[in-house]
Amino acid sequence: MNPIPVSELKAFVVEVLVACGVSAEDSDVAAEVLVTTDSWGVFSHGTKSLHGYCRRLQKKGLNPRGKPKVEKEGPAWALVDGDSALAMVTGVFAMRLAIAKAQHSGIALVTVHNSCHFGAAGYYASLAAAAGQIGFAFSNDFPSVTAPGSQGPVMGSNPFAFSAPSGREGTMVLDMATAEAAGGKVSAAAAEGKSVPNTWLVDLQGRPTIDPNQFLQHKAFLAPMAGHKGYGLALMIEILSGALSGAAMREQVGKWYWEPRDISTDHSHAFIAINPAVFLGADIMPARMDELFQDIRSGPVVPGMGNVKIPGDIEREKRAKALQAGIEFPVEVLQLLQVAAEENGCAIPRFLRASG
Amino acid sequence: MNPIPVSELKAFVVEVLVACGVSAEDSDVAAEVLVTTDSWGVFSHGTKSLHGYCRRLQKKGLNPRGKPKVEKEGPAWALVDGDSALAMVTGVFAMRLAIAKAQHSGIALVTVHNSCHFGAAGYYASLAAAAGQIGFAFSNDFPSVTAPGSQGPVMGSNPFAFSAPSGREGTMVLDMATAEAAGGKVSAAAAEGKSVPNTWLVDLQGRPTIDPNQFLQHKAFLAPMAGHKGYGLALMIEILSGALSGAAMREQVGKWYWEPRDISTDHSHAFIAINPAVFLGADIMPARMDELFQDIRSGPVVPGMGNVKIPGDIEREKRAKALQAGIEFPVEVLQLLQVAAEENGCAIPRFLRASG
Repeated sequence: MNPIPVSELKAFVVEVLVACGVSAEDSDVAAEVLVTTDSWGVFSHGTKSLHGYCRRLQKKGLNPRGKPKVEKEGPAWALVDGDSALAMVTGVFAMRLAIAKAQHSGIALVTVHNSCHFGAAGYYASLAAAAGQIGFAFSNDFPSVTAPGSQGPVMGSNPFAFSAPSGREGTMVLDMATAEAAGGKVSAAAAEGKSVPNTWLVDLQGRPTIDPNQFLQHKAFLAPMAGHKGYGLALMIEILSGALSGAAMREQVGKWYWEPRDISTDHSHAFIAINPAVFLGADIMPARMDELFQDIRSGPVVPGMGNVKIPGDIEREKRAKALQAGIEFPVEVLQLLQVAAEENGCAIPRFLRASG
Repeated sequence: MNPIPVSELKAFVVEVLVACGVSAEDSDVAAEVLVTTDSWGVFSHGTKSLHGYCRRLQKKGLNPRGKPKVEKEGPAWALVDGDSALAMVTGVFAMRLAIAKAQHSGIALVTVHNSCHFGAAGYYASLAAAAGQIGFAFSNDFPSVTAPGSQGPVMGSNPFAFSAPSGREGTMVLDMATAEAAGGKVSAAAAEGKSVPNTWLVDLQGRPTIDPNQFLQHKAFLAPMAGHKGYGLALMIEILSGALSGAAMREQVGKWYWEPRDISTDHSHAFIAINPAVFLGADIMPARMDELFQDIRSGPVVPGMGNVKIPGDIEREKRAKALQAGIEFPVEVLQLLQVAAEENGCAIPRFLRASG
């Protein structure tokens, strides 16, 4: 299959979302989130999920005409009701609100309830960096990750994202789940008949296991990243997102991909924006960030390595290539894009029909 | 040796700091930080370092009469000059300032430059929880931890702390370094002739090693927690603390324990406080936190485990015991407390003279 041009992919995503009843404006926002994520090479959180969001839109568990709204606010904070709109729309709305507030207040926190799976947390954090600010993005999810000593899952894979701009050295984007490894990677290992590292899974007796089939049989579960540290970060994110916004917490959160698809999953998020200009003045911070990133990138490396990376470097390189030459998708994603077209009465796009 | 009563230990720390020229008031603040940390069982970050802080106070690289002051501020943020005072004094000053601001603004960020090693980050975060708020504390340090692909250290062990209160279910305190393991643990393994897990150290060729002697010989260095994730968190903390406050960054930061002891190390910190009451009202959040902590603690556990812990549970139990029965210190700390007494012209306290 040939690489897919970014603009064609985005137009297709907009077409499918509009077919589900989403406004053209909101469809454009959501498509930009998902296609940007794909252009970073983060295929697990991009248009791969489009068909899933659409199934929920069709059953009204996501509200096609939902409009996130501010419920309560102050100069440096807000509480947002996501109105069960597409979470990409709500996430962009809430992060932009945090950025606008931080412009004056120096720091701002926006929490969100009544939302859903929002894709890549790093996208929202990077909106702050694009505005010259520092950004954080967090979300809770249905439990899939164990805690030290637990029998079975306790926390969601609760993502943590941080982004910070520089002057001319690019943007740092750190985007990580708080599980040691994603469930998708475990399933992939099982499909290939491979074992997994002994830090990824924990069985019902609390023992590490390298057998990915135990995960598929619900006899082993995902381990938190770095043990108690990853568990602690996941709980922190549950507090910032779920507890602080009044949303569902842990088992109360809906499983967004599955039935029932006719009610809100009530996912929650938290977004923090920081305006560095208030601390040091507008000019000094970019120069300090350039110095920091440059010094790290030019430090000594082990033989055979290119250079030490700033988080986000690899994704930025991939995006530059994607914008020029298109995105090369795994076959699995292409199949799911076709499902999204078929299930929503859209024509199979040219880029899926073309034989490569 | 008998357990040391908390009140006697604190009085001794105050006496030693006063002997170094620190005011009685500031000595009390710093002693409370260090002794509370010991009462949690976190001996690596408590009074063990007292003699080191004193050596720096004697040489004026820490300013005995330093007073942290606000350089710039807004309703939700401040930039603090630590005046090279004891970092425990500066940390408490800055966190209290963040809490006072967040009371009205909902969230506040205070960054600090011209500071030093501040002990346990969790202490400062927990001050927010004691005031009914959510707290974060971060600090940078001289590089001691590698990054993926680096030859040698790139980031400090930059600690990350988070704390959140509940109604009647206790306070969560997450306090973690961003290295996979502390250097002190590696040295201890070397002293005992033991090997270390293969995730702790990386040699100059980027290979994991289990030989702690390579660390002592500067042929292997600490690995970041969970690889690129821990490195990313450490860089985030460097940005929030060092870059945003205008302080020293990475190699510019002084090695606080070593010479030269006559100039400021220019460590930096960042403190965030969040007032949950603005989001949901004063009553709702404590009840939600009780529910969250209770549900996690009462969930299924692997055979032989007590229950799933909330971060901070173990330290709270240890502190309750310490307040009743005193603190049982490792011999190493007792020896260093004696050094602190001797080097600063103080009498060896009764609790160090008593044979146990």
